[in-house]
Amino acid sequence: MPPSFNLRVTERSKVKRVPKRAAYDRATVDAILDSGLLCHVGYVIDGTPYVTATCYWRHGDRVYWHGSAASRMLRTVTSGVPVCFSVSHLDGLVMARSGFHHSVNYRGVTLFGEAVMIEDPAEKLATLKDFTDRLTPGRWEELRETTDQELKGTTICALTIDEGSAKVRTGGPLDDAPDYDLNIWAGVVPITTVVGEPVADDRLKPGIPEPDYLRRISIGAPPRG
Amino acid sequence: MPPSFNLRVTERSKVKRVPKRAAYDRATVDAILDSGLLCHVGYVIDGTPYVTATCYWRHGDRVYWHGSAASRMLRTVTSGVPVCFSVSHLDGLVMARSGFHHSVNYRGVTLFGEAVMIEDPAEKLATLKDFTDRLTPGRWEELRETTDQELKGTTICALTIDEGSAKVRTGGPLDDAPDYDLNIWAGVVPITTVVGEPVADDRLKPGIPEPDYLRRISIGAPPRG
Repeated sequence: MPPSFNLRVTERSKVKRVPKRAAYDRATVDAILDSGLLCHVGYVIDGTPYVTATCYWRHGDRVYWHGSAASRMLRTVTSGVPVCFSVSHLDGLVMARSGFHHSVNYRGVTLFGEAVMIEDPAEKLATLKDFTDRLTPGRWEELRETTDQELKGTTICALTIDEGSAKVRTGGPLDDAPDYDLNIWAGVVPITTVVGEPVADDRLKPGIPEPDYLRRISIGAPPRG
Repeated sequence: MPPSFNLRVTERSKVKRVPKRAAYDRATVDAILDSGLLCHVGYVIDGTPYVTATCYWRHGDRVYWHGSAASRMLRTVTSGVPVCFSVSHLDGLVMARSGFHHSVNYRGVTLFGEAVMIEDPAEKLATLKDFTDRLTPGRWEELRETTDQELKGTTICALTIDEGSAKVRTGGPLDDAPDYDLNIWAGVVPITTVVGEPVADDRLKPGIPEPDYLRRISIGAPPRG
Protein backbone atom coordinates (compact mmCIF):
# COMPACT_ATOMS: atom_id res chain seq x y z
CA MET A 1 0.00 0.00 0.00
CA PRO A 2 1.52 3.35 -0.95
CA PRO A 3 2.13 5.89 1.79
CA SER A 4 -0.98 7.97 2.19
CA PHE A 5 0.45 11.19 3.53
CA ASN A 6 2.49 14.07 2.29
CA LEU A 7 5.57 15.67 3.75
CA ARG A 8 4.97 18.30 6.37
CA VAL A 9 5.55 21.77 4.96
CA THR A 10 7.11 24.14 7.46
CA GLU A 11 8.97 27.40 7.31
CA ARG A 12 12.22 25.53 6.87
CA SER A 13 10.99 22.79 4.54
CA LYS A 14 8.92 24.90 2.17
CA VAL A 15 10.61 25.36 -1.21
CA LYS A 16 10.93 29.08 -1.79
CA ARG A 17 12.95 29.34 -5.01
CA VAL A 18 10.99 28.15 -8.09
CA PRO A 19 8.17 26.63 -6.03
CA LYS A 20 6.58 25.07 -9.12
CA ARG A 21 9.42 22.52 -9.02
CA ALA A 22 8.53 21.49 -5.48
CA ALA A 23 6.68 18.31 -4.50
CA TYR A 24 5.63 17.08 -1.10
CA ASP A 25 3.87 13.81 -1.94
CA ARG A 26 5.36 10.60 -0.69
CA ALA A 27 5.23 8.89 -4.08
CA THR A 28 7.60 11.50 -5.54
CA VAL A 29 9.76 11.62 -2.43
CA ASP A 30 10.08 7.85 -2.10
CA ALA A 31 10.92 7.40 -5.78
CA ILE A 32 13.79 9.87 -5.41
CA LEU A 33 14.99 8.32 -2.16
CA ASP A 34 14.81 4.80 -3.60
CA SER A 35 16.94 5.76 -6.60
CA GLY A 36 19.86 6.89 -4.51
CA LEU A 37 22.64 5.43 -2.44
CA LEU A 38 24.64 8.46 -1.31
CA CYS A 39 23.15 11.15 0.90
CA HIS A 40 24.60 14.26 2.51
CA VAL A 41 23.79 14.75 6.18
CA GLY A 42 24.05 18.22 7.70
CA TYR A 43 24.47 18.86 11.41
CA VAL A 44 25.90 21.51 13.70
CA ILE A 45 28.71 21.26 16.24
CA ASP A 46 29.56 24.41 18.20
CA GLY A 47 27.84 26.58 15.63
CA THR A 48 29.79 25.13 12.70
CA PRO A 49 27.90 23.30 9.95
CA TYR A 50 29.17 19.87 8.96
CA VAL A 51 28.13 17.93 5.88
CA THR A 52 28.95 14.23 5.75
CA ALA A 53 28.40 12.07 2.69
CA THR A 54 27.34 8.55 3.53
CA CYS A 55 25.25 5.67 2.20
CA TYR A 56 21.60 5.49 3.17
CA TRP A 57 18.55 3.38 2.55
CA ARG A 58 14.81 3.82 3.00
CA HIS A 59 12.48 1.36 4.66
CA GLY A 60 8.87 2.32 5.20
CA ASP A 61 8.59 5.78 6.69
CA ARG A 62 12.23 6.21 7.62
CA VAL A 63 15.62 6.72 6.02
CA TYR A 64 18.62 5.08 7.64
CA TRP A 65 22.36 5.53 7.57
CA HIS A 66 25.12 3.85 9.54
CA GLY A 67 28.77 3.64 10.33
CA SER A 68 31.28 3.03 13.03
CA ALA A 69 30.18 3.56 16.62
CA ALA A 70 33.26 5.81 16.84
CA SER A 71 31.95 8.18 14.18
CA ARG A 72 31.63 11.77 15.35
CA MET A 73 28.87 12.34 12.83
CA LEU A 74 26.81 9.43 14.17
CA ARG A 75 27.41 10.37 17.80
CA THR A 76 26.28 13.91 17.03
CA VAL A 77 23.20 13.18 14.94
CA THR A 78 21.85 10.65 17.45
CA SER A 79 22.16 13.09 20.35
CA GLY A 80 18.81 14.77 19.74
CA VAL A 81 20.02 17.63 17.59
CA PRO A 82 18.39 18.83 14.35
CA VAL A 83 19.72 17.26 11.16
CA CYS A 84 19.21 18.00 7.50
CA PHE A 85 19.23 15.01 5.14
CA SER A 86 19.78 15.64 1.44
CA VAL A 87 19.68 13.37 -1.60
CA SER A 88 20.32 14.73 -5.10
CA HIS A 89 20.39 13.16 -8.54
CA LEU A 90 21.79 15.09 -11.48
CA ASP A 91 19.87 14.14 -14.64
CA GLY A 92 21.04 16.55 -17.29
CA LEU A 93 22.67 19.76 -18.39
CA VAL A 94 20.13 22.19 -19.78
CA MET A 95 21.78 24.31 -22.46
CA ALA A 96 19.89 27.50 -23.16
CA ARG A 97 20.62 30.28 -25.63
CA SER A 98 21.78 32.63 -22.88
CA GLY A 99 24.06 31.85 -19.98
CA PHE A 100 21.37 33.09 -17.63
CA HIS A 101 18.85 30.42 -18.60
CA HIS A 102 21.25 27.50 -18.43
CA SER A 103 20.10 25.05 -15.82
CA VAL A 104 20.31 21.42 -14.77
CA ASN A 105 17.71 18.71 -14.58
CA TYR A 106 17.73 17.07 -11.20
CA ARG A 107 15.71 15.29 -8.55
CA GLY A 108 16.34 16.05 -4.91
CA VAL A 109 14.84 15.42 -1.49
CA THR A 110 15.56 17.38 1.67
CA LEU A 111 14.37 16.14 5.06
CA PHE A 112 14.57 17.83 8.45
CA GLY A 113 14.21 16.28 11.86
CA GLU A 114 16.00 14.54 14.67
CA ALA A 115 17.57 11.18 14.01
CA VAL A 116 17.30 8.33 16.50
CA MET A 117 19.69 5.48 17.15
CA ILE A 118 18.50 1.93 16.53
CA GLU A 119 19.44 0.14 19.74
CA ASP A 120 17.80 -3.29 19.63
CA PRO A 121 20.22 -5.86 18.13
CA ALA A 122 17.47 -7.74 16.29
CA GLU A 123 16.16 -4.52 14.79
CA LYS A 124 19.72 -3.52 13.85
CA LEU A 125 20.22 -6.80 12.01
CA ALA A 126 16.87 -6.50 10.22
CA THR A 127 17.78 -2.97 9.19
CA LEU A 128 21.16 -4.02 7.83
CA LYS A 129 19.40 -6.73 5.84
CA ASP A 130 17.09 -4.05 4.40
CA PHE A 131 20.15 -2.12 3.26
CA THR A 132 21.68 -5.17 1.58
CA ASP A 133 18.32 -6.07 0.02
CA ARG A 134 17.93 -2.57 -1.39
CA LEU A 135 20.90 -3.12 -3.69
CA THR A 136 21.36 -6.89 -3.87
CA PRO A 137 18.34 -8.94 -2.79
CA GLY A 138 19.46 -12.45 -1.88
CA ARG A 139 22.97 -11.47 -0.82
CA TRP A 140 22.28 -11.13 2.90
CA GLU A 141 21.48 -14.85 3.15
CA GLU A 142 24.78 -15.75 1.42
CA LEU A 143 27.05 -13.64 3.61
CA ARG A 144 29.03 -14.72 6.63
CA GLU A 145 26.82 -13.88 9.61
CA THR A 146 27.32 -10.61 11.45
CA THR A 147 29.00 -11.12 14.81
CA ASP A 148 27.79 -9.57 18.06
CA GLN A 149 30.95 -7.51 18.20
CA GLU A 150 30.45 -6.17 14.66
CA LEU A 151 26.87 -5.28 15.52
CA LYS A 152 27.99 -3.47 18.67
CA GLY A 153 30.58 -1.56 16.67
CA THR A 154 27.96 -0.39 14.17
CA THR A 155 25.75 2.59 14.87
CA ILE A 156 22.59 2.81 12.80
CA CYS A 157 20.41 5.87 12.88
CA ALA A 158 16.98 6.55 11.48
CA LEU A 159 15.19 9.72 10.45
CA THR A 160 11.43 9.73 9.98
CA ILE A 161 10.23 10.97 6.59
CA ASP A 162 8.05 13.76 7.91
CA GLU A 163 9.19 17.35 7.42
CA GLY A 164 10.80 18.11 4.09
CA SER A 165 10.40 18.56 0.38
CA ALA A 166 11.29 17.22 -3.02
CA LYS A 167 12.43 19.40 -5.89
CA VAL A 168 12.51 18.25 -9.49
CA ARG A 169 13.41 19.87 -12.78
CA THR A 170 12.84 18.10 -16.08
CA GLY A 171 12.62 19.15 -19.71
CA GLY A 172 14.45 21.46 -22.06
CA PRO A 173 15.67 25.03 -21.81
CA LEU A 174 13.21 27.87 -21.30
CA ASP A 175 14.62 30.84 -23.15
CA ASP A 176 13.50 34.44 -23.46
CA ALA A 177 11.13 34.71 -26.45
CA PRO A 178 13.48 36.71 -28.74
CA ASP A 179 16.37 34.33 -28.08
CA TYR A 180 14.70 31.45 -29.93
CA ASP A 181 15.67 33.19 -33.16
CA LEU A 182 19.37 33.11 -32.35
CA ASN A 183 21.72 30.74 -34.12
CA ILE A 184 22.75 28.98 -30.91
CA TRP A 185 22.52 25.29 -30.18
CA ALA A 186 20.16 24.54 -27.30
CA GLY A 187 18.99 21.31 -25.72
CA VAL A 188 19.72 18.86 -22.96
CA VAL A 189 22.77 16.70 -22.35
CA PRO A 190 21.57 13.76 -20.23
CA ILE A 191 23.59 12.60 -17.24
CA THR A 192 23.10 9.10 -15.91
CA THR A 193 24.63 6.87 -13.30
CA VAL A 194 25.77 3.57 -14.76
CA VAL A 195 26.36 0.39 -12.78
CA GLY A 196 29.21 -1.40 -14.51
CA GLU A 197 30.51 -4.91 -15.00
CA PRO A 198 31.36 -6.59 -11.70
CA VAL A 199 35.09 -7.07 -11.10
CA ALA A 200 35.81 -10.19 -9.06
CA ASP A 201 38.18 -9.92 -6.11
CA ASP A 202 41.72 -11.16 -6.81
CA ARG A 203 41.29 -13.59 -3.96
CA LEU A 204 37.90 -14.93 -5.05
CA LYS A 205 37.77 -18.71 -4.54
CA PRO A 206 37.73 -20.56 -7.87
CA GLY A 207 34.36 -21.80 -9.03
CA ILE A 208 32.21 -19.20 -7.34
CA PRO A 209 29.68 -17.95 -9.90
CA GLU A 210 28.79 -14.30 -10.24
CA PRO A 211 25.44 -13.77 -8.52
CA ASP A 212 22.60 -12.71 -10.83
CA TYR A 213 21.63 -9.82 -8.55
CA LEU A 214 24.85 -7.97 -9.46
CA ARG A 215 23.39 -7.33 -12.93
CA ARG A 216 20.18 -5.86 -11.56
CA ILE A 217 21.60 -3.13 -9.33
CA SER A 218 20.03 0.23 -10.02
CA ILE A 219 21.36 3.53 -8.68
CA GLY A 220 20.32 7.02 -9.64
CA ALA A 221 17.88 5.79 -12.28
CA PRO A 222 16.18 8.75 -13.95
CA PRO A 223 12.42 9.14 -13.82
CA ARG A 224 10.52 7.21 -16.50
CA GLY A 225 9.14 9.10 -19.47
CA MET B 1 52.06 25.52 -12.23
CA PRO B 2 50.36 23.21 -9.77
CA PRO B 3 49.25 24.63 -6.43
CA SER B 4 52.12 24.36 -4.03
CA PHE B 5 50.32 24.14 -0.75
CA ASN B 6 48.21 21.66 1.13
CA LEU B 7 44.88 22.09 2.81
CA ARG B 8 44.99 23.39 6.33
CA VAL B 9 44.33 20.63 8.83
CA THR B 10 42.32 21.78 11.82
CA GLU B 11 40.26 20.14 14.51
CA ARG B 12 37.22 20.27 12.26
CA SER B 13 38.90 19.42 8.96
CA LYS B 14 41.07 16.54 10.14
CA VAL B 15 39.74 13.17 8.96
CA LYS B 16 39.24 11.04 12.06
CA ARG B 17 37.56 7.90 10.74
CA VAL B 18 39.95 5.73 8.65
CA PRO B 19 42.61 8.46 8.43
CA LYS B 20 44.65 6.41 5.94
CA ARG B 21 42.04 7.38 3.35
CA ALA B 22 42.58 11.08 3.94
CA ALA B 23 44.52 13.42 1.70
CA TYR B 24 45.29 17.09 2.10
CA ASP B 25 47.36 17.84 -1.00
CA ARG B 26 45.98 20.22 -3.56
CA ALA B 27 46.60 17.88 -6.50
CA THR B 28 44.24 15.29 -5.01
CA VAL B 29 41.75 17.90 -3.85
CA ASP B 30 41.65 19.75 -7.17
CA ALA B 31 41.28 16.55 -9.19
CA ILE B 32 38.21 15.63 -7.14
CA LEU B 33 36.76 19.13 -7.34
CA ASP B 34 37.36 19.34 -11.09
CA SER B 35 35.54 16.05 -11.69
CA GLY B 36 32.29 17.25 -10.14
CA LEU B 37 29.42 19.54 -10.95
CA LEU B 38 27.10 19.14 -7.96
CA CYS B 39 28.13 20.13 -4.45
CA HIS B 40 26.29 20.15 -1.15
CA VAL B 41 26.63 23.33 0.89
CA GLY B 42 25.93 23.25 4.62
CA TYR B 43 25.05 26.30 6.68
CA VAL B 44 23.19 27.15 9.85
CA ILE B 45 20.12 29.35 10.34
CA ASP B 46 18.81 29.74 13.90
CA GLY B 47 20.66 26.63 15.01
CA THR B 48 19.16 24.45 12.26
CA PRO B 49 21.49 22.88 9.71
CA TYR B 50 20.59 23.30 6.06
CA VAL B 51 22.13 21.41 3.15
CA THR B 52 21.59 22.78 -0.34
CA ALA B 53 22.65 20.96 -3.49
CA THR B 54 23.87 23.26 -6.21
CA CYS B 55 26.30 23.42 -9.12
CA TYR B 56 29.81 24.65 -8.46
CA TRP B 57 33.06 25.21 -10.28
CA ARG B 58 36.68 25.71 -9.27
CA HIS B 59 38.96 28.42 -10.54
CA GLY B 60 42.42 28.77 -9.04
CA ASP B 61 42.28 28.68 -5.28
CA ARG B 62 38.54 29.05 -4.91
CA VAL B 63 35.32 27.16 -5.50
CA TYR B 64 32.29 29.10 -6.66
CA TRP B 65 28.56 28.56 -6.73
CA HIS B 66 25.73 30.86 -7.75
CA GLY B 67 22.03 31.39 -8.05
CA SER B 68 19.27 33.91 -7.76
CA ALA B 69 19.92 37.01 -5.70
CA ALA B 70 16.68 36.05 -3.92
CA SER B 71 18.10 32.74 -2.71
CA ARG B 72 18.03 32.33 1.07
CA MET B 73 21.01 30.00 0.85
CA LEU B 74 23.11 32.58 -0.99
CA ARG B 75 22.06 35.43 1.26
CA THR B 76 22.99 33.32 4.28
CA VAL B 77 26.33 31.96 3.11
CA THR B 78 27.56 35.38 2.02
CA SER B 79 26.76 36.97 5.38
CA GLY B 80 30.02 35.97 7.05
CA VAL B 81 28.84 32.71 8.61
CA PRO B 82 30.74 29.41 8.54
CA VAL B 83 29.91 27.09 5.68
CA CYS B 84 30.78 23.51 4.89
CA PHE B 85 31.25 22.62 1.23
CA SER B 86 31.07 18.96 0.23
CA VAL B 87 31.68 17.17 -3.07
CA SER B 88 31.36 13.40 -3.35
CA HIS B 89 31.79 10.94 -6.20
CA LEU B 90 30.60 7.36 -5.81
CA ASP B 91 32.93 5.04 -7.74
CA GLY B 92 31.90 1.53 -6.78
CA LEU B 93 30.17 -0.93 -4.51
CA VAL B 94 32.68 -3.01 -2.58
CA MET B 95 31.19 -6.43 -1.96
CA ALA B 96 32.93 -8.26 0.86
CA ARG B 97 32.28 -11.72 2.29
CA SER B 98 30.65 -10.30 5.40
CA GLY B 99 28.11 -7.51 5.62
CA PHE B 100 30.40 -5.71 8.01
CA HIS B 101 33.21 -5.29 5.49
CA HIS B 102 31.03 -4.08 2.63
CA SER B 103 32.04 -0.60 1.61
CA VAL B 104 31.97 1.84 -1.26
CA ASN B 105 34.73 3.32 -3.33
CA TYR B 106 34.44 7.08 -3.42
CA ARG B 107 36.27 10.38 -3.75
CA GLY B 108 35.19 13.30 -1.64
CA VAL B 109 36.32 16.76 -0.62
CA THR B 110 35.10 18.76 2.37
CA LEU B 111 35.98 22.43 2.77
CA PHE B 112 35.27 24.77 5.67
CA GLY B 113 35.34 28.54 5.71
CA GLU B 114 33.39 31.68 5.09
CA ALA B 115 32.14 32.38 1.59
CA VAL B 116 32.33 35.85 0.07
CA MET B 117 30.11 37.45 -2.54
CA ILE B 118 31.62 38.47 -5.86
CA GLU B 119 30.46 42.05 -6.27
CA ASP B 120 32.33 43.51 -9.23
CA PRO B 121 30.31 43.05 -12.46
CA ALA B 122 33.38 42.36 -14.60
CA GLU B 123 34.61 39.77 -12.13
CA LYS B 124 31.12 38.23 -12.03
CA LEU B 125 31.10 37.91 -15.82
CA ALA B 126 34.58 36.41 -15.88
CA THR B 127 33.54 33.94 -13.22
CA LEU B 128 30.42 32.88 -15.11
CA LYS B 129 32.61 32.35 -18.18
CA ASP B 130 34.85 30.10 -16.08
CA PHE B 131 31.81 28.02 -15.15
CA THR B 132 30.71 27.67 -18.77
CA ASP B 133 34.29 26.90 -19.85
CA ARG B 134 34.59 24.17 -17.22
CA LEU B 135 31.94 22.10 -19.01
CA THR B 136 31.79 23.48 -22.53
CA PRO B 137 34.82 25.55 -23.59
CA GLY B 138 33.85 27.75 -26.50
CA ARG B 139 30.17 28.05 -25.61
CA TRP B 140 30.43 31.33 -23.71
CA GLU B 141 31.46 33.15 -26.89
CA GLU B 142 28.45 31.73 -28.76
CA LEU B 143 25.79 32.67 -26.22
CA ARG B 144 23.58 35.72 -26.19
CA GLU B 145 25.35 38.23 -23.94
CA THR B 146 24.41 38.49 -20.31
CA THR B 147 22.40 41.62 -19.59
CA ASP B 148 23.10 44.00 -16.71
CA GLN B 149 19.79 43.03 -15.14
CA GLU B 150 20.61 39.31 -15.34
CA LEU B 151 23.97 39.97 -13.78
CA LYS B 152 22.38 41.98 -10.97
CA GLY B 153 19.90 39.18 -10.34
CA THR B 154 22.69 36.62 -10.02
CA THR B 155 24.58 36.13 -6.79
CA ILE B 156 27.94 34.43 -7.07
CA CYS B 157 29.86 33.36 -4.02
CA ALA B 158 33.37 32.06 -3.57
CA LEU B 159 35.02 29.94 -0.92
CA THR B 160 38.79 29.77 -0.67
CA ILE B 161 40.29 26.29 -0.81
CA ASP B 162 42.08 26.46 2.50
CA GLU B 163 40.76 24.44 5.42
CA GLY B 164 39.48 20.98 4.55
CA SER B 165 40.28 17.46 3.50
CA ALA B 166 39.87 14.89 0.79
CA LYS B 167 38.91 11.30 1.45
CA VAL B 168 39.34 8.50 -1.07
CA ARG B 169 38.71 4.78 -1.05
CA THR B 170 39.78 2.59 -3.94
CA GLY B 171 40.31 -1.12 -4.46
CA GLY B 172 38.63 -4.34 -3.54
CA PRO B 173 37.13 -5.70 -0.34
CA LEU B 174 39.28 -6.22 2.72
CA ASP B 175 37.90 -9.26 4.49
CA ASP B 176 38.79 -10.96 7.73
CA ALA B 177 41.46 -13.58 7.04
CA PRO B 178 39.27 -16.68 7.65
CA ASP B 179 36.50 -15.30 5.43
CA TYR B 180 38.56 -15.64 2.25
CA ASP B 181 37.85 -19.38 2.40
CA LEU B 182 34.09 -18.89 2.24
CA ASN B 183 32.15 -19.66 -0.92
CA ILE B 184 30.89 -16.11 -1.31
CA TRP B 185 31.31 -13.87 -4.33
CA ALA B 186 33.34 -10.80 -3.55
CA GLY B 187 34.56 -7.92 -5.67
CA VAL B 188 33.69 -4.46 -6.85
CA VAL B 189 30.77 -3.22 -8.92
CA PRO B 190 31.90 0.01 -10.58
CA ILE B 191 29.65 3.05 -10.62
CA THR B 192 30.25 5.76 -13.18
CA THR B 193 28.59 8.96 -14.31
CA VAL B 194 27.87 8.93 -18.03
CA VAL B 195 27.30 12.00 -20.15
CA GLY B 196 24.80 10.97 -22.81
CA GLU B 197 23.85 11.93 -26.35
CA PRO B 198 22.75 15.55 -26.61
CA VAL B 199 19.03 16.02 -27.22
CA ALA B 200 18.30 19.13 -29.28
CA ASP B 201 15.61 21.51 -28.12
CA ASP B 202 12.27 21.13 -29.96
CA ARG B 203 12.55 24.77 -30.93
CA LEU B 204 16.14 24.58 -32.20
CA LYS B 205 16.50 26.63 -35.37
CA PRO B 206 17.04 24.40 -38.43
CA GLY B 207 20.61 24.12 -39.65
CA ILE B 208 22.37 24.72 -36.33
CA PRO B 209 25.05 22.07 -35.96
CA GLU B 210 25.69 20.27 -32.70
CA PRO B 211 28.78 21.87 -31.13
CA ASP B 212 31.77 19.54 -30.77
CA TYR B 213 32.26 20.46 -27.12
CA LEU B 214 29.06 18.61 -26.20
CA ARG B 215 30.85 15.32 -26.86
CA ARG B 216 33.77 16.19 -24.61
CA ILE B 217 31.87 16.95 -21.39
CA SER B 218 33.26 15.03 -18.45
CA ILE B 219 31.55 14.77 -15.08
CA GLY B 220 32.43 12.50 -12.19
CA ALA B 221 35.24 10.82 -14.09
CA PRO B 222 36.91 8.20 -11.90
CA PRO B 223 40.59 8.39 -11.09
CA ARG B 224 42.90 6.94 -13.70
CA GLY B 225 44.47 3.54 -13.15
